[in-house]
Amino acid sequence: MAKTLKVAIVQMSMGADPAANTARALALSTEAVAAGAELVCLPELFRSRYFCQSEDAAHYALAEEIPGPTTAAFEKLAARSGATLVLSLFERRAPGLYHNTAVVIDGAKGMLGKYRKMHIPDDPRYYEKYYFTPGDLGFRAWDTGAGRIGVLVCWDQWYPEGARLTALKGAQILIYPTAIGWHPEEKAALGERQHAAWETIQRSHAIANGCFVVAINRTGFEPEPGGSGGIEFWGQSFVAAPDGHLLVKASSTQQSVLYAELDLGAIERQRQGWPFLRDRRIDAYQPITQRFDDE
Amino acid sequence: MAKTLKVAIVQMSMGADPAANTARALALSTEAVAAGAELVCLPELFRSRYFCQSEDAAHYALAEEIPGPTTAAFEKLAARSGATLVLSLFERRAPGLYHNTAVVIDGAKGMLGKYRKMHIPDDPRYYEKYYFTPGDLGFRAWDTGAGRIGVLVCWDQWYPEGARLTALKGAQILIYPTAIGWHPEEKAALGERQHAAWETIQRSHAIANGCFVVAINRTGFEPEPGGSGGIEFWGQSFVAAPDGHLLVKASSTQQSVLYAELDLGAIERQRQGWPFLRDRRIDAYQPITQRFDDE
Repeated sequence: MAKTLKVAIVQMSMGADPAANTARALALSTEAVAAGAELVCLPELFRSRYFCQSEDAAHYALAEEIPGPTTAAFEKLAARSGATLVLSLFERRAPGLYHNTAVVIDGAKGMLGKYRKMHIPDDPRYYEKYYFTPGDLGFRAWDTGAGRIGVLVCWDQWYPEGARLTALKGAQILIYPTAIGWHPEEKAALGERQHAAWETIQRSHAIANGCFVVAINRTGFEPEPGGSGGIEFWGQSFVAAPDGHLLVKASSTQQSVLYAELDLGAIERQRQGWPFLRDRRIDAYQPITQRFDDE
Repeated sequence: MAKTLKVAIVQMSMGADPAANTARALALSTEAVAAGAELVCLPELFRSRYFCQSEDAAHYALAEEIPGPTTAAFEKLAARSGATLVLSLFERRAPGLYHNTAVVIDGAKGMLGKYRKMHIPDDPRYYEKYYFTPGDLGFRAWDTGAGRIGVLVCWDQWYPEGARLTALKGAQILIYPTAIGWHPEEKAALGERQHAAWETIQRSHAIANGCFVVAINRTGFEPEPGGSGGIEFWGQSFVAAPDGHLLVKASSTQQSVLYAELDLGAIERQRQGWPFLRDRRIDAYQPITQRFDDE
């Protein structure tokens, strides 16, 4: 019988105190590796509430260098357990230069590298262009003790190009730390379709590329600073198999550690059954690098 | 109130006689325009049974030139009704050179152009590489009386690149004539997931690109020539809105003309709500033109 890989998704809700959030993330990750997880994935920007609901220079104080105290704390857990950990952090690269950055820590090897979020959103209560310079490291994948993995972050979810490019780097698992939810005032009218679109497009990345997709969202309501609204993060973290079916899915409201067993052999079986990579028309894809093909 | 566009999907099952299939396609299309359809879409290779279940040179006799007798017959209907018609034909381009080709016929203007299927499958009972040279016209869109439309064909469905490139040409509606079904012996184990993958990835093209997707499949069982198997075409033709939700969906077994009213204004509203096109990282997409990014 082929080896399976045990993955843990830490779906969290975040309080006002970054130290407490970080301690809880570390405790839940410790619980996960104790339960045998070889790959532990945390949600986007788990150290704090989702501060991008407003544009406020005071929030830059939440950024930290990478490597820094948070990576150091998780490197200890990785070294002790041998597990691979995926973190999402607010990176202070230089004074006045910040990124939304994911970090891969691999057992005793420590930090293998980072991915800086390439696609940066900006819409009401998701004012990320104020905080984050778009990534300049491209799309990446790393060989780890938990397979070859690639990390993309939240808004990247909507771009088939990001998934494809990461899969072409050989990634077996596409990991999406995320912070997405409903505007409460829109939820009745649009909420179901918004969530369905989010799940559907990520399942499609699994299908198009014949790989696993792991989406880790936060949950809970976070009020909008100085406003009357906020975001109800929709949870529902999940793992999709290479044929797109859901292996596991978390609730919309519960903080929980979700486990899935990934049979990495399913990737090649799926790609042999439906050999999409064989037939890509790379001779015709050049206009993908254009903004719009209106010449 | 904004104008809506009435679209008809002609979900057919095909018999052994091409003349009878063509006559039925014409009759159903006539019924559709009489019911007010401004855009009528037919399934892939509707003139015949899905002959690619076997490799047999005798089937080349099914090919015809474009323009040819079938386009002429449908041009008459288009001219009479003013409707836009999308056909899928087995094109004889030259002796020994054949394509799987879609044709757009626009009211009194007649044939606007053709699209030659770019991604050609080849797997058991779908031996298309034997019959069809891969398309050499690239991805296309046309201004028609029924909006700006792009056509892709079946196996193209699995490639986000094809959908993206057609949307970047300005297409408001991506139309996928299709012939896909179950191998009966696999259906119990894999059928539901196969169908879900097919629907999911096409809905994802609507979501990623903020446009409508129209998928037209055939239905009915067609036996494998000289074999004991066959294909149970799964029908379930559908129209997806720019947020990915299904507007209409046909049954798996019934021949039927399915109608949908498309509010083309939903495209821009969706793209303003979730402005994905704004943030594409065209500076980083170049490796999409590589077979695999393993250098």
